[in-house]
Parts: sequence; C-alpha cells; structure tokens
Amino acid sequence: PQTKLPNIGTTIFTVMSQLAAEHSAVNLGQGFPDFDVPERLVQALDRAMREGKNQYAPMTGLPVLRQAIAAKTERCYGYRPDADTEVTVTSGASEAIFDAVHAVVRPGDEVIVLDPCYDCYEPAIDLAGGRAVHVALDPAHFRPDWERIRAAVTPRTRMIITNTPHNPSGAMFDGADIAQLEALLHDTGIYLLSDEVYEHIVFDGARHESALRHPALRERAFVVSSFGKTYHCTGWKVGYCIAPPALSAELRKVHQYNTFCTFTPAQAAFAEMIEAEPTHYEGLGAFYQAKRDRFHDQLLGTQLKPLTVPGGYFQLVDYSTVSDLDDASFCRWLTVEKGVCAIPLSPFYAEPPRRQHLARLCFAKNEATLDAAIERLRAL
Amino acid sequence: PQTKLPNIGTTIFTVMSQLAAEHSAVNLGQGFPDFDVPERLVQALDRAMREGKNQYAPMTGLPVLRQAIAAKTERCYGYRPDADTEVTVTSGASEAIFDAVHAVVRPGDEVIVLDPCYDCYEPAIDLAGGRAVHVALDPAHFRPDWERIRAAVTPRTRMIITNTPHNPSGAMFDGADIAQLEALLHDTGIYLLSDEVYEHIVFDGARHESALRHPALRERAFVVSSFGKTYHCTGWKVGYCIAPPALSAELRKVHQYNTFCTFTPAQAAFAEMIEAEPTHYEGLGAFYQAKRDRFHDQLLGTQLKPLTVPGGYFQLVDYSTVSDLDDASFCRWLTVEKGVCAIPLSPFYAEPPRRQHLARLCFAKNEATLDAAIERLRAL
Ligand SMILES: CSCCC(=O)C(=O)O
Ligand SMILES: CSCCC(=O)C(=O)O
Repeated sequence: PQTKLPNIGTTIFTVMSQLAAEHSAVNLGQGFPDFDVPERLVQALDRAMREGKNQYAPMTGLPVLRQAIAAKTERCYGYRPDADTEVTVTSGASEAIFDAVHAVVRPGDEVIVLDPCYDCYEPAIDLAGGRAVHVALDPAHFRPDWERIRAAVTPRTRMIITNTPHNPSGAMFDGADIAQLEALLHDTGIYLLSDEVYEHIVFDGARHESALRHPALRERAFVVSSFGKTYHCTGWKVGYCIAPPALSAELRKVHQYNTFCTFTPAQAAFAEMIEAEPTHYEGLGAFYQAKRDRFHDQLLGTQLKPLTVPGGYFQLVDYSTVSDLDDASFCRWLTVEKGVCAIPLSPFYAEPPRRQHLARLCFAKNEATLDAAIERLRAL
Repeated sequence: PQTKLPNIGTTIFTVMSQLAAEHSAVNLGQGFPDFDVPERLVQALDRAMREGKNQYAPMTGLPVLRQAIAAKTERCYGYRPDADTEVTVTSGASEAIFDAVHAVVRPGDEVIVLDPCYDCYEPAIDLAGGRAVHVALDPAHFRPDWERIRAAVTPRTRMIITNTPHNPSGAMFDGADIAQLEALLHDTGIYLLSDEVYEHIVFDGARHESALRHPALRERAFVVSSFGKTYHCTGWKVGYCIAPPALSAELRKVHQYNTFCTFTPAQAAFAEMIEAEPTHYEGLGAFYQAKRDRFHDQLLGTQLKPLTVPGGYFQLVDYSTVSDLDDASFCRWLTVEKGVCAIPLSPFYAEPPRRQHLARLCFAKNEATLDAAIERLRAL
C-alpha cells in the first residue's frame, strides 16, 4: 500500500531487544526492570478480577483511581487536580502522548521537541498532520538552550514537548529552566506536553520540577505519567494525563475513540496500592540511586566512561576510547560480539551530532544482571 | 482551546451508563455482560503475573498469543494467518480500528460506512483527515443495499468499513453479501476494515462470514476482533487485527507509537485459554441463543416489539405502540422514569431515519437482571 508513514521503521527498542534475544546478550537496552512487581499490587489485581471488576471502566478511568492520582499529585506537588475533569487514565503514557498530540495539533502546526527525544513524539505529530521542529539539547549535559528554543518559535508553534527526568540522558529541569519555559510560553497560545514518566526516580535529593507545581505551566499543560516505572510493571500499560478541564475534554475526545478505556483490574489495583502505601514514591529514588552508584563504580573498571545521571534509570556511557564506530553500529557490535545490549542515541535525533560516541544502558536490573554485564564489559 | 473535533461529544455509552447509575436503572444500555470471566482465565492471568510476565510484551503481541490466534483462525475460518507478519495484538478492537484507519486514510480520502454504525469509526476517520461517506442499511432488516453502496464509491474512496454480526442490529452478512462486496472491491485499491467482534455470537446455525474466509477480501482487509465479547471481559481490552503483511506493517507503524503494547499478563492468559479450550467458541452461540430466546419471549409480554436478532448480544425493540418520542428522548425517559436503560439508534446515524422508533437492549445479562428489566417493562 502507499504508505502514510514512509519514514517510520521499527522502533529501536524492538530492534535491539530482538537482537539481544538472538545473541543471548544481557539486555540493558529497552528500559524495563527485571525484578518483581510489589506483591500487594499482584494481590490487589487478583482480588479485583475475583470481585468481578472485569467490564469496561468509565472512559476517563475508574473514579477511585482518578481520586488516588489526584491525592498523590497533591502530596507530591502541592496541587490537587480535579479527579473528574482533570485526570484521564490511558493505556500507558504512550497513549496519553498520542492522544494529547492528536487533541490539539492540526495540519500545518509546528511542535517543538528537544533532541535527543523519545521516539514516539514525532510520529504522533506527523500522523496529526503537524511538523516536529527539533532543537538540540547541549550534547555534553543535555540541558536546554533556551535562546535556541525561543528562536524556534513561530506563529505556527502549537505545542512544546518536554521530558524531565529526560530519557535517554537522565537530565532534569531545574528552577531556572522552569522560569525560562514560563517566560517562553507567557502570553502565547502554545501548549505544553510534559512527559514525566520518571518523576519519582530522582537522585541526590534533587527536586522533580513537575509542570504541575507551576501555575503558569499547568494552566496550559498536558502532564503525562504512568505507573510502569514507579511499580516495576512496564507491561501493565496504565498511564494518565493531568490537564486543565478544557484540555482534558479535548484529550478525552481522542481517547474515547482510540482505546476507550484501560484494563479495569489494574486500575483498581493501582488505586488500592496508592492508598495503602502513599509513600512508596519516596523510597524509589534511594532504591535506584543505590543501583546507579554501584553500576557507576563498576563501570569505572571498564573502558566505558559513565556520564552523570541525575534521574531516570539509564546510564549514558562514552565509548570513544573503545571504538570509533557510530553509535548504532557500536551498539550492534556490543550486543552481537560482546553480549551486552545497549541503545544508541542517534535514533532520538533528527540530526545526530557527528562523532557523539554515547550509548545508553538500563540499570533497572538485579545486581546479578548488572554484574554479568560488567563482567562482559570488562573484557572490552 | 480551539477544538479539532468540534462535533464530538461524549459517547452515548458513557452518557447512558451515567444516567443509569444516577437513577438506579437496570442497565441494558452499554454492551457488557454481568456474569463472570471463566475461572481458568483468571487463574492463568494470576499465574502470568506471578511468573513475572509483567514487562513490555513485544510491540506486535506475545508470540504465544499470536500463534494461538493464528491457530484459532484456521480452525474457525480455514485460513491460517502468519503469526509473525499478519497478526497484531492491540489494546482492544477499538485501538485496532483506530490504528487501521490511521494507517491508510490520508487527508481528503473517503471511507464508506454503513449506517447505523458503531460510533468510533467516524471520529477516527475525521482525525486522520478523511471523510466518512454514510450509506444507510435498510431500516427494516439492516441489510446492505449494494446498489447504493456502489453508487457511493468515488476515486477518493480509500476504505469501506463493515461490521458483521452488526452492532446495534445483530444483522449478519450472508454469502450473497460477500459476493457483492467482492465484486465491489474487485480491481480497485479500496481497503476493507471488517469489524467482527461478535464473530462467535451467532444463532440458529448461521455461518459467520468472516472476511478471512474469502481470499478476495482478506488480501485487502484489516480484520478486527477482540476477546472481550468472547470471554465476558469487556474491561480487559485485548483485541487484535489480522491483515496481510504489507497492511499489518502499516498498522504496526501506528500501533507502535500509539499504545506500543498491551497488558502482558492478559496476553499470556488468553494464549493459555485458547490452547486449553479450543472449542470454547463453539458453545458461545448456544449460550447466548438461550438468553436471546428467553428475553424475546419475555418481551412479547410487554408493549415493546422485539425484532429478529441473528447475532450479537443486543435486542432491538420497536417502541412505537408505547411512545412517539424520538429514540434519544425515549431512552432517557425509559431510564429515568421506568428504570430500564436502553441505547437509542440515532447516534449511530449521520442522518437518523425519521420516526424510527427503535431502542437497543443488551441481553448479555444474568436471568435475574433480565427478569428485573422485564418486570419494569411490563408496567409500560
Ligand atoms: C516502549 S519500549 C521503550 C521503553 C523505554 O521507555 C525506553 O527504553 O526508553
Ligand atoms: C466502548 S463502550 C460500548 C460497548 C459497546 O460495544 C456497545 O454498547 O455497543
């Protein structure tokens, strides 16, 4: 068929996960934990099924879950969204992003994205008939250059998509970034899509600058998160979007004709889990920080140079002392020949920087998995 | 915000379910069963979680589920799709429909839909920049008029969407319809989107004319189904699309950036269920036929005149001896004043027929529920 999406291949995550499986590589590529979902969550889901909560949830999500999300948001960010009009449950953060883009981006509209950026933003923009305008983050620390972002704004700019903590780098917005973003958006009609799925995985006492903390941002923002990263269940695909009533209404118009609603028993389970352990979030940073620190120290014993990781569960490494291959080729080589699967950064760029020798390793893994990877990496 | 979808309200299912809840009406509106999911399925899902199948499934679906779907399709329709290249698991049939439309419909394309039609088709077409071209089914028996459909074809026709067994009427395509559809599509580039979610709920020994039985159809078809209707779990939201490799490749381009993948433990559970009870399907027609027949006979004791129902789990009733209200007002009245929630047909039409006094009642309910409804309906 004549394709509508000629430039779309298979996502790098699928490609690398398949390659890892074929070559029995330790898979530090696609981001997912290899440890267990909390037992309470499994039990709660089981109970929900047995209580007969197996039919359509309301299109916007189970009320009890929307209320739990509202309460959690208030605890975390000091702002309580209205559960009825501002919280929508979706089939993962991915669907929330897709729906938000389709809710407001019209043919000919421009959407600013900051490269490297997660690979689902641009296809959603394309499908909506819009155009992604790419502005690169600084290649050393992956911080936004607000002058360059400002220069990319045109009368056609409809939305800007931000991501903090940032995938793949782990970089986080700070208060100065928020002030810049507020100034940029002030008195414009530009929407903000803030992808915050790693919101609770932050290190060294840093504060996650959710758009929800900041009135001038949240009044125009679709704030997207999910439970996959927070509860070690990336395959459960329950996400949500918090947005002002008028924006939520538009998002729901897309959502109700896209997936309509989301696996009911998991919604009930997350509601129970949040209620029962409202401080689960607080432990998550320390849990992952221990993994980050241990992995970082182990990497110092290899030829791969670890970069600083403020948040998220990915470690960027500079491989330039090992190889001059481009990153896609290096990651294939590392997977096939050395048995450790990593993700290259170039797929996250419209124009990858030349000779940027960085690869991404996921450290959301058991110590045994990371030890096995390190042992192989020591042989580089 | 300036809305992209000015004509989209809240779906009639949400509106009526809310009204039913507010007025404690017996809810025969939104289509969902009020009886249990098979115990084997609940156990299998539970086991999948405990075995740690909680991370991302492959974007196309768990291989074991795709193979089970392929085998089941062969058993049912004599055609075995290739599990790798022709089967894609989605977050419900809704997502499959949304993805299929977005995969091929371009701005300016026309898509033929047969009214009354399920309410998610047109918004998906609109969002893709296409235009729905409505052709009405005959208002007495909801059969297609192939002359009128042929007359609606233009050089811009990109797709036709069919639905058998048909929601809301239960009408089914027969062999003559298939021959007409084949003739219509022959030598054109028009795609077929065949919505077959009620495929296993057919009565009186009728044969479900899946597009997958017919080579001239399946070579150009996205065939969509789901497990929600077959296993009494509409809230589990696992659907799938079977399409030739080239079409599946296009669909997957959308799917991978929309929801990416679907709740993993349910995928494992459905795979196990299909394998363990490959003939479950065969009993479903008889199970629902008993409900249909009993409900039909009960309705004969009321002022509502039941129409013939060849398939699906909805009973249309003619209320013209009770009221001259339009169907939307009648269904509100029935819900609020008489305590039985029904769905009007007009929301499924671009131009509802004048003075069509029909309402839809869902009989996928326990006898006690249907008895309670009948008792209230007797008082009309
Ligand atoms: C949807 S698969 C990708 C998982 C992920 O978020 C990542 O690896 O960056
Ligand atoms: C997605 S809610 C609608 C359920 C349904 O298929 C129907 O009632 O027709």
